[in-house]
Amino acid sequence: MKIAVKKFGGTSVGSPERIKNIATRLIKAKKQFPNLVIVVSAMGATTDNLVKLAFEMSPTPCPREYDALISTGENVSAALLAMALNGAGTPAISLTGLQAGIKTENIYNRAKIIKVEPSRIYDELSKGKIVIVTGFQGVNHILDVTTIGRGGSDTSAVVLASVIGASECDICTDVDGVYTTDPRLVKNARKLDEISYDEMLELASLGAKVLHPRSVECAKENNIVIHVRSSFKDSEGTRVKEDTNLESQRPVTGITLNQEQATLSILKVPDTPGVAGVIFSRLAEKNINVDMIVQSINENKMNDVTYTIDKIDLDVAKKISQTICDDLHASRIEWDDNIAKLSVVGIGMVSKPGVAAKMFQVFGDHKINIKFISTSEIKISCVINKKDAQQALQYLHDAFELDKH
Amino acid sequence: MKIAVKKFGGTSVGSPERIKNIATRLIKAKKQFPNLVIVVSAMGATTDNLVKLAFEMSPTPCPREYDALISTGENVSAALLAMALNGAGTPAISLTGLQAGIKTENIYNRAKIIKVEPSRIYDELSKGKIVIVTGFQGVNHILDVTTIGRGGSDTSAVVLASVIGASECDICTDVDGVYTTDPRLVKNARKLDEISYDEMLELASLGAKVLHPRSVECAKENNIVIHVRSSFKDSEGTRVKEDTNLESQRPVTGITLNQEQATLSILKVPDTPGVAGVIFSRLAEKNINVDMIVQSINENKMNDVTYTIDKIDLDVAKKISQTICDDLHASRIEWDDNIAKLSVVGIGMVSKPGVAAKMFQVFGDHKINIKFISTSEIKISCVINKKDAQQALQYLHDAFELDKH
Repeated sequence: MKIAVKKFGGTSVGSPERIKNIATRLIKAKKQFPNLVIVVSAMGATTDNLVKLAFEMSPTPCPREYDALISTGENVSAALLAMALNGAGTPAISLTGLQAGIKTENIYNRAKIIKVEPSRIYDELSKGKIVIVTGFQGVNHILDVTTIGRGGSDTSAVVLASVIGASECDICTDVDGVYTTDPRLVKNARKLDEISYDEMLELASLGAKVLHPRSVECAKENNIVIHVRSSFKDSEGTRVKEDTNLESQRPVTGITLNQEQATLSILKVPDTPGVAGVIFSRLAEKNINVDMIVQSINENKMNDVTYTIDKIDLDVAKKISQTICDDLHASRIEWDDNIAKLSVVGIGMVSKPGVAAKMFQVFGDHKINIKFISTSEIKISCVINKKDAQQALQYLHDAFELDKH
Repeated sequence: MKIAVKKFGGTSVGSPERIKNIATRLIKAKKQFPNLVIVVSAMGATTDNLVKLAFEMSPTPCPREYDALISTGENVSAALLAMALNGAGTPAISLTGLQAGIKTENIYNRAKIIKVEPSRIYDELSKGKIVIVTGFQGVNHILDVTTIGRGGSDTSAVVLASVIGASECDICTDVDGVYTTDPRLVKNARKLDEISYDEMLELASLGAKVLHPRSVECAKENNIVIHVRSSFKDSEGTRVKEDTNLESQRPVTGITLNQEQATLSILKVPDTPGVAGVIFSRLAEKNINVDMIVQSINENKMNDVTYTIDKIDLDVAKKISQTICDDLHASRIEWDDNIAKLSVVGIGMVSKPGVAAKMFQVFGDHKINIKFISTSEIKISCVINKKDAQQALQYLHDAFELDKH
């Protein structure tokens, strides 16, 4: 059974009209792909509104109830889309995470999918129905609803594509593909035809919001081509796939700007073995995602340890870091949430040296101070002052000539 | 394990503030009743808004998807209440119909509960948690969500009370009890301390919106006392229970006005045996609830058959009736949705004759034309013109002196 998987994001199902519009497009698509599995997010601002309600109940909403609450957004959009299709004479059925057989770990808010039992999906497809699965949610071993983290509907779609043997997964969204950088910030940003998993993974992890990084990881592991494309027109978007020949000659593929991070430092940590292990395992225990880590030797074998985290985790991370600071007899903690991280990404930089040098040169030419640097094989990230960020993005985009094919 | 069951309606959980208010009241109640099972409806207008969305998708929304959609309202309010309780330091958990073990027949929109497997409820109670169950919903044999009809949360609460061995079930609502008639329509309407199941059943069936008739039936069958009371204050409300001695001396207990019905007539139906069976079984097949039935002999052994139905069913019922009319070679159909039904109810009328006579006299004195009459042991209903309805209600309330204890 050849099955096509398409995921529609929150903007695409953001109003009754848009849902009906998607239904019309799906009825057309079914002629080409008789077996369609659709994954939907919640309508527009629904999840945000539910989150707001949750925080009106408690400053720290119970995680289980939080998932029970916010998962309802996807139930609503899935049921509405199924109604629109059925109403137009095309049989369709909505399935919740539970009904679609999506099993996750037994944690809340950011559970991982561990297994999919798709028998119900096959059943319904074999009855000629378009199957609409709620993204973002699954159930744990006692059938409590879990969610897999914001943006997780992309991951739901890729996991389903993999389980049911689809070779490609359409991620339909309100942009028409992946760009060299955010086109709202840089006017001459250019849409890419293809991008490799690794580049997309870097871009997604670095804050390009078009795809959730876990969905890219998952696609890479299972060799699923992700086709990022517009929900509203038929034009080709950007294919995320195995290292492409087509454009791999370019040293830099894209640039991202992340303004949602903060830095935290623990100063004068005694330099004994295992100290870094203590710090980062204790942050990990509390589910704090640490991004860049810089350790610099101070005096008298004292280290300053600085790391970047998501800004929303700052309050929690401050508390943990203060305890770590006390326990390790370090001097004190410091933080800065007025930063931005600029990253240039390109699989080509492996074979083309000088990308880092050029990036630093651009900053130097414009007197922009670099606070931290972090590199991987295909990425160079610099943390700078937030006020310089947008200008710096344009300088880099121009310097690497990303507007040119 | 002694367990108290309390149900809160949509108005009672209609805003974040109200939910927190209910949470505060429950924390107090838990001191008196350590084992609390709470049943909640959807917040305020949520269900109506979801219904509106459904009809924007299709004029005849797919029943399965309709249930999948509107059941989310209860999921939201249950999770929010659990969060508010947990946030205030009182352990609580929300359970969906599925998780609470509520199994229904395999029909949608008005399924009956056939079984409750309350092991999860007991589990959570034994952990000291307040258990919050979503009203109005269950699951069928393939775990698809079903709903049990509007107002069904009352039934959910009574069924749960019965299954877990509670002797009383609090139905907490925005009125403080059951009145002799709608106090918004009749200023001197009086709150009743007690009312019998049979009277309440008549009142509920006749349109007194304070309790769903199925919940009363269910309470009667299982001998559960329903305590209708305010969500917002501790005062005693009205107890619905086995035939009471206290007030059974009164001939009339209450009067209802139902303006949500319409009449349908099939004219000149040939008078052959089995004709009524055909008509009403075919209406029943389409889940049309027929209330009053009047058959009058016309000429040449032709009958006019008239029946009242819920106004929302009128369009569907018209279509079915037209087909029946054609099939039976009857003359034509007629309908009227400009009617009102007034009913006086009282267990005392069994032993006190003259209630019907007095009712007709009141109508006669005020020149109000009676279109149909229907009686039961404890009820007399008259269908009149809608324009006379509210005035007639006041005349009857005065004539039977219902404002006096």
